[in-house]
Amino acid sequence: MAKITVVSPLAPKRFPEMPVIDGVSFSTVAAGIKYEGRADVMLARLAPGTTVAGVFTKSATRSAPVLDCQEKLGGPAKDGAAILVNSGNSNAFTGRNGRDAVARIVGAVARACDVPETRVFTSSTGVIGEPLPFERITERLDTLAATLDPNAIEAAAAAIMTTDTFTKGATASVEIDGKTVSIAGIAKGSGMIAPDMATMLVYIFTDARIDQGTLQSLVATHNEKTFNCITVDSDTSTSDTVLVCATGASGVDVGDSAPFGDALHKVMKDLAHLVVKDGEGATKFVEITVTGAASDKDAKTHALSVANSPLVKTAIAGEDPNWGRIVMAIGKSGAPADRDALSIRFGDVEVARKGWVNPDYVEAEAAAHMKGQNICIHVDIGLGSGKATVWTCDLTHGYIEINADYRS
Amino acid sequence: MAKITVVSPLAPKRFPEMPVIDGVSFSTVAAGIKYEGRADVMLARLAPGTTVAGVFTKSATRSAPVLDCQEKLGGPAKDGAAILVNSGNSNAFTGRNGRDAVARIVGAVARACDVPETRVFTSSTGVIGEPLPFERITERLDTLAATLDPNAIEAAAAAIMTTDTFTKGATASVEIDGKTVSIAGIAKGSGMIAPDMATMLVYIFTDARIDQGTLQSLVATHNEKTFNCITVDSDTSTSDTVLVCATGASGVDVGDSAPFGDALHKVMKDLAHLVVKDGEGATKFVEITVTGAASDKDAKTHALSVANSPLVKTAIAGEDPNWGRIVMAIGKSGAPADRDALSIRFGDVEVARKGWVNPDYVEAEAAAHMKGQNICIHVDIGLGSGKATVWTCDLTHGYIEINADYRS
Repeated sequence: MAKITVVSPLAPKRFPEMPVIDGVSFSTVAAGIKYEGRADVMLARLAPGTTVAGVFTKSATRSAPVLDCQEKLGGPAKDGAAILVNSGNSNAFTGRNGRDAVARIVGAVARACDVPETRVFTSSTGVIGEPLPFERITERLDTLAATLDPNAIEAAAAAIMTTDTFTKGATASVEIDGKTVSIAGIAKGSGMIAPDMATMLVYIFTDARIDQGTLQSLVATHNEKTFNCITVDSDTSTSDTVLVCATGASGVDVGDSAPFGDALHKVMKDLAHLVVKDGEGATKFVEITVTGAASDKDAKTHALSVANSPLVKTAIAGEDPNWGRIVMAIGKSGAPADRDALSIRFGDVEVARKGWVNPDYVEAEAAAHMKGQNICIHVDIGLGSGKATVWTCDLTHGYIEINADYRS
Repeated sequence: MAKITVVSPLAPKRFPEMPVIDGVSFSTVAAGIKYEGRADVMLARLAPGTTVAGVFTKSATRSAPVLDCQEKLGGPAKDGAAILVNSGNSNAFTGRNGRDAVARIVGAVARACDVPETRVFTSSTGVIGEPLPFERITERLDTLAATLDPNAIEAAAAAIMTTDTFTKGATASVEIDGKTVSIAGIAKGSGMIAPDMATMLVYIFTDARIDQGTLQSLVATHNEKTFNCITVDSDTSTSDTVLVCATGASGVDVGDSAPFGDALHKVMKDLAHLVVKDGEGATKFVEITVTGAASDKDAKTHALSVANSPLVKTAIAGEDPNWGRIVMAIGKSGAPADRDALSIRFGDVEVARKGWVNPDYVEAEAAAHMKGQNICIHVDIGLGSGKATVWTCDLTHGYIEINADYRS
């Protein structure tokens, strides 16, 4: 297994101050599923009245826990809910065994937390193709249920890590009708655990009161412009999961109010950025904005083509303002583009204008931008008004080291 | 510019013995477009009666020479034809300047070779976004026309190289009606020339007699299973070009005879493999076969998803029989798959069977296969009878070095 001993240079200085979300409590335990000497299971207990929404990987080879979660969204809020997550083993590609392990864990959580099985959500992340030793989890559920603590969200963020190099949290609050509504979320990112692929798990909690249908629609909408706009290496996990839980404890009906939507968007975007900032071997955080496409959808296709191009990502690692590779990535994306209408900026420096190098372009100015830690690339397609922004990181020797040099 | 001093470990021992193709002659010259001390322009003169077929990059930002070639396919064979190729400058993303440069070169070739401008095909490969110094070519055309030689195909293969580490040639011959029909082809591969992307140029010559429509159809068909089945880093050049020229000098009407099609397929496949074997940083040649997909198209989608996955390619570089990453790549491809029907082999070793690890699997056996230079991965989707084979190379530190560590 890859030994990651260095924290990403893009990591924030510390885990943020997180508000306590009324109606949510956490506990963690070291179950020894794969790792030694660290917590690897987390339990979150959600009070009666909590609605749960979620989005999941679109992979055709989704893991057993993902399939189980997808079926359970929209269940009755009155009974409360629980989330159980383990790291170290993804319970993916484990055949019938995988479904059985989920059923055993769900049953044990339901009993220990006194919630119906239909309201227990689970995630697993880690090696794939190995049977999950579920007894190590089920035999610790009484301990987990007995140690639930509303203040333990940072420990929860740590327990779900695999080879992440830092814990990931984000928060926002908003005043509605003179009352405060809080949101707190945690994520595990794109650190690798051989022989698994990068899995993203995200759990967001709020004391807002909101019905499940409205919450589901909000989460799906904001997901398109946050988690679905990040990419580290274009690869898609079998286990990606985002769950958003609203306890209603603030007593504030947020409905589809814009301020709540904005706050949720902020938390989702912050967590998405943190996942990119822990990309394997990442040394630069890259924002790619495409404007002037025929549609927003086309703009996103172009932006992701740039973000996923190994040639673009290695140029960024090399601090090279290589606009030729941007042209190439736009050209291959499949969305409409006109070579002679393209304009490209690195930071504030206009490199190419309407299909050719800007006559006033000074390479040293673009090169100066590329030396920074935050790189902004802007492409105007020159065809319409479609726009999109996506985020990625550079492709470095660190990526090869983590994914090739170490054996599983 | 990246300095490539080491020949790819996957290179063949030598350039093959090539037959002289009656009706084709070659010349080269050092025009100093970018490189010092080497030939960087090649001219091929094709006798009256030669039909020319071709396929080109699908990029929306195609270069000026590509657009010009595309318009000219299907022109009259009676006047002969000429091909002029320069390395060092791709004449891509050069606005109106690019079209003008092509027109100037075409005019000069037409005069020097006494062929109509509509029968002059050009390609350019090298840096993009810089004006092509076309006078360095046009002022040498009399020399080029005066030194044409039917035996100079290896020199032609060398003149079109950019950072390729070896010259690429392939040949085949076939007996039809007691007479020999010969095919000889050259290619430049995926060596990078900063700040350009990998460009593939291929020129194939035969003395077969075949009308343009039949040849075009043959080339398009075989292209789908040869050049369109290779990938180094999923990136697409603005200049990719394959031209096939039939002089008819053998006097043998090949029509759509199977033996000629097979021979053409062999030359195209051999050249495609050579391009992969010169992939940047490549240390292993990888064949990925997918069977049991719902359709051939789906099989190719799955196979290319595996071939383009950075996680799969780094695992191969690390000699790791990491079947979890294969599952991931199949799952994300977008084509139908059923997790519990997948089977995977590395070489002859069945690793996974119907959705879970093969109970008889011994990792040491798969690991032994991964240590070889030629890696075979076979995935059976378990849904239908669709099948496809694609080829790629591993993703190594060498790729990062060539594309990030050196500045343009």
